Amino acid sequence: MSRLLSHVGIAVQDIGRAIDTLQKICPDLAVAERVTVADQDVEVCFLESQSQGSCRIELLRGLTASSPISKFIEKRGEGLHHICFGCASVQDRLSELREKGFEMIDDSPRTGALGKNIAFIHPSSTHGTLIELEEE
Amino acid sequence: MSRLLSHVGIAVQDIGRAIDTLQKICPDLAVAERVTVADQDVEVCFLESQSQGSCRIELLRGLTASSPISKFIEKRGEGLHHICFGCASVQDRLSELREKGFEMIDDSPRTGALGKNIAFIHPSSTHGTLIELEEE
Repeated sequence: MSRLLSHVGIAVQDIGRAIDTLQKICPDLAVAERVTVADQDVEVCFLESQSQGSCRIELLRGLTASSPISKFIEKRGEGLHHICFGCASVQDRLSELREKGFEMIDDSPRTGALGKNIAFIHPSSTHGTLIELEEE
Repeated sequence: MSRLLSHVGIAVQDIGRAIDTLQKICPDLAVAERVTVADQDVEVCFLESQSQGSCRIELLRGLTASSPISKFIEKRGEGLHHICFGCASVQDRLSELREKGFEMIDDSPRTGALGKNIAFIHPSSTHGTLIELEEE
């Protein structure tokens, strides 16, 4: 099943503690993938439920003080960071959205944590919500 | 299908403009419900995709300056506000989480926008993320 809302990203300081907390709230949540992405300066962990098709949770931790996630936490504290929508082609969607006047963070697709094409739309174009596009 | 992650709440200043923006990004999104909840001082609009089981988006607008949503926007700007997990019984889950040391915003279940039992967990217990529980 297609997941229109692919995941919700949460910036945290300690992924293990965040997993523990969320599993207390939702015992059905399980770790799907946990990877370090050195060139993006983050560790990410995807949580999902056993229900096919449900939206995932992506926990993000900055690896260094200069990581965008560390800077986000320094400015705003831990918490909700972005939402991600799936799409058939990030390149096509980027072109469409630019034509409609959206400001993009990424001018062209780049490779995300799981090897998929991704791009981010700037929150100034989306009423304050950082939105990621991910190629399905 | 059960939706473990039931919805993502976004605080906005203008629901119509936010719908327009999100539909440009995700043409598949449609308005499922739009209601004014006077006693909670908010207007809410649920967006969903045609894919059964996918997580919904809840847009929230404060009706007055004293609404919690208006105060949130005044302090942090528009943007991601909370995530909501479904559960079989909010009352049971509240008791369990209190025993585990979680701080709750609601001591007992109250009625949410769509007439369901809901309760909020305080973000101080959840690494900065406001989490709602909703009875399925």
